[in-house]
Parts: sequence; C-alpha cells; structure tokens
Amino acid sequence: MKKYKKSDLESYTLGTTLTLELLNKKIEYVKRVYIHSKQEKNETYEKIVNICKNNNIEILMSDKTINSLSDKENCYVIGVFEKFESEITDNENHIVLVNPSNMGNLGTIIRSSVGFGINNLVIIKPAVDIFDPKVIRSSMGAIFNLNFKYYDSFSDYSKNYKREYYPFMLKAKTNLNNVEKKYPCSLIFGAEATGLDDSYLEIGTPVIIKHKNIIDSLNLDNAVSIALYEFTKDKI
Amino acid sequence: MKKYKKSDLESYTLGTTLTLELLNKKIEYVKRVYIHSKQEKNETYEKIVNICKNNNIEILMSDKTINSLSDKENCYVIGVFEKFESEITDNENHIVLVNPSNMGNLGTIIRSSVGFGINNLVIIKPAVDIFDPKVIRSSMGAIFNLNFKYYDSFSDYSKNYKREYYPFMLKAKTNLNNVEKKYPCSLIFGAEATGLDDSYLEIGTPVIIKHKNIIDSLNLDNAVSIALYEFTKDKI
Repeated sequence: MKKYKKSDLESYTLGTTLTLELLNKKIEYVKRVYIHSKQEKNETYEKIVNICKNNNIEILMSDKTINSLSDKENCYVIGVFEKFESEITDNENHIVLVNPSNMGNLGTIIRSSVGFGINNLVIIKPAVDIFDPKVIRSSMGAIFNLNFKYYDSFSDYSKNYKREYYPFMLKAKTNLNNVEKKYPCSLIFGAEATGLDDSYLEIGTPVIIKHKNIIDSLNLDNAVSIALYEFTKDKI
Repeated sequence: MKKYKKSDLESYTLGTTLTLELLNKKIEYVKRVYIHSKQEKNETYEKIVNICKNNNIEILMSDKTINSLSDKENCYVIGVFEKFESEITDNENHIVLVNPSNMGNLGTIIRSSVGFGINNLVIIKPAVDIFDPKVIRSSMGAIFNLNFKYYDSFSDYSKNYKREYYPFMLKAKTNLNNVEKKYPCSLIFGAEATGLDDSYLEIGTPVIIKHKNIIDSLNLDNAVSIALYEFTKDKI
C-alpha cells in the first residue's frame, strides 16, 4: 500500500483512537486494519481487535506498511476505508467553505462544526481534499460524523438551498455581535489568504467579526469557530 | 548561521511580510537581514531595504543562509533579531496558557489575542518556546505587538496579579454564554491534550464553552479565540 493520493479510492486513519472512531462510525466502509508489532495490547487495541473480529474485517500485522504510510513514529494502527459520498441535509444549518487550502484548518473546522452541532459542510472547489489523512487526523475523527459535499461554484450550491446566507467578510457592515440570527442558515467563509471576494457583499447578510486593525485577519479556523459559537450558543 | 535552537540568543523571521513587521515594530532588536538572489524587487522589498539603510542595519545577500534556515522554497528574506524580554501590564486583561505544547497553536492564539486587543500573554512552564521561528510565522507577526512572560507555576504568576480569574475547563459549571464578565481579568487555558487539572476548579470562576459530547474538546486556539470574542465583543 502506498501513501495517499487524491485519486485513490481508499484513504486511512493514522493511530488507535482515530481508527476506533472510524470503526464505530463508518464500519461499512472499512476494508482492513494494519497493526504494528510495537502496538501495546491496551484497552483501545482490544476494542479494535474485537470489532474487526465481529465484523469480519481483516487485521494485518505489517510494520512495513505502517512505517511507509505514517510520518509520525508513534503511530501503530492504521484503518483503511473506502472513500464515501454523503449528501447534505436541507432544513439544517450549513458551513460553506469557499476554496479552503489548508488541510489542518479544514480538519479543525470540522471538529468545531460537529462540536457546535452543525453537521453539514459544503466545500466550493478548488479546495483541499477532505479525505487526505492529514485532514482526517486534524478533525480528530469528527469527519466521520459529518455530511459534506463539493460544488463547482457557489451558485451551483445556493440554487438548491433556500435559506439565510451569512458571508463572513472584512468589508461587511453587520457586526457578528449584533446580527439578527435566522435559521436554517449557511455561514460562508473564503480562502485563508484572500477571504471572500466582493461579489459576496450582494448575498444574504454579510457579517464581520470585528477585530483591531493591527492584525490583517483572524486565522480561518478561529473565525469559523467564533461564528459557530455565536450562531449556536442558545441551542447547545 | 544555523537553524534555530531554544538556547540561541537570536531568532529570525521567515519571509518578507514578517521581516517588515519585525522592522516596523522591534527595530531596536534587529541585528541583520538576509536576502536571497531570487527575491523580487517589489514594494515590500524596497521598504525593507530603505528601513535597513536608514537604521544602519546590515543587509547580507546569502542564498546559502536562507536555504539552510528555511524549509519553504519561496522564503527569500530573513530578519535576525536579538531575543527580547517583556513585562506584562497590570490593570489590563491577560491570556494565561498553562503548558502549551503546539507551536502553531501558540502563534494563532497570539494573532487572535492581539486582534481582540489583549496584548498580555502569560505562559506557565513547561511550554513551547515563543521565539521559535514556527511560532513567529504562525503569529503572522502579531508577536511583535505582545507583552509576554514565562512563569514556573501558576501561583508564581497569580500572587502578583490581583484580578478576576476565569479558568476554561470542561468540568466548569458556568457557561461562557452566561458568565458575568469583570475586568481586568485573566482567561486561563490548559494544555492541548489534557486541559487544566481539577485544582483550577478552586480558582476564580471556572467557565465552560459548551459543545456536543460527540467531540472530546475544541482545538485549543479555537477555544481561546471564542473566549476572546465573548470577553471583548463590547469593547472592539
């Protein structure tokens, strides 16, 4: 087995906790599990082995495979799964990321989003690959609780979903602190380096998270997390 | 010049924007600037060269030095500075990080903190090194607008600062959404993997950022950013 490429039909989880999460949430897609000879026979390990046995999932002992797939020294379990498609749910809130380019950010955004009860993610291409093992690891497994869908353009997405749109942008006039929140809604964010372009000023209610001008902008995952908190704080 | 080590007396900024920020904010500590032969003669470059000339800062053309200090291919300017000490300000709000271990997180926390107008950071050891070039890069230069101080223990810090303490922890009873905010205050956060230990339940007003149990916790920089937003939103 080789290192993940975007064109692969399979991806994988690196580490015991993440692999257990995969088995608990998406067992129907799991193809096999690799275990390293250095893996401790602890509680998580026992759970993984039992789930695999009960579901006829193959366990392979292969130090070579694990060493070649993982950059980290202390990763001793890898779960291989078939990449799956999912549909976002109408009538629920969505996070929309336009051209996200950083895998670590995408993972932590998924973690926050699922944490605040928004389980639907729309990604407008071009964008990073949600199935890259780096994204999966950075999401801490929250990706297995998420509906997500890629679209070629924002209008391809928005024509199918009637709802309140809130594009987050520095040129917006409405402060997040004062925004009138209506649901179901879509919270929309641009790419790390550029944000949303001016065309989004014409869409729904553009919102700004006010900060001092001494910084150019907040880091993307921090901006998304703040918006998630404000839009869900009365519901959690 | 060799790659940064914690014991070094100097550190450096990687890239033109970051080096310009260093020159604008902490020129008294700048020792020299390295420029790569591939660096474009653009506006930022001209500014850097002018500031150096006007302040008798040495500019060295050295592809070799830049290649050995930077892991990224498109980094063509490096600013070397003497590491500085700073004092936190009483009567202002503080962020307190207990044993932070991730350099990227520390940098984005600094960026958010300065963005929300809290320019005083306390770090309880053991902790990552704030002068590591990875932290500086991840802060996008916000570190040059920050007062910070390391302490050996929380009590070494708290005995000197009378104020409202808000430890953020999953076992807290008070929801961030309802907390009575008093100032000056210190917002206190534990390490990425473990959070704050139970002893912090006895300090000030422990606060929880409520999220669904499906995730174990928020990423540290996201938790800090949400707290910063809530505690400063009426003041920005």
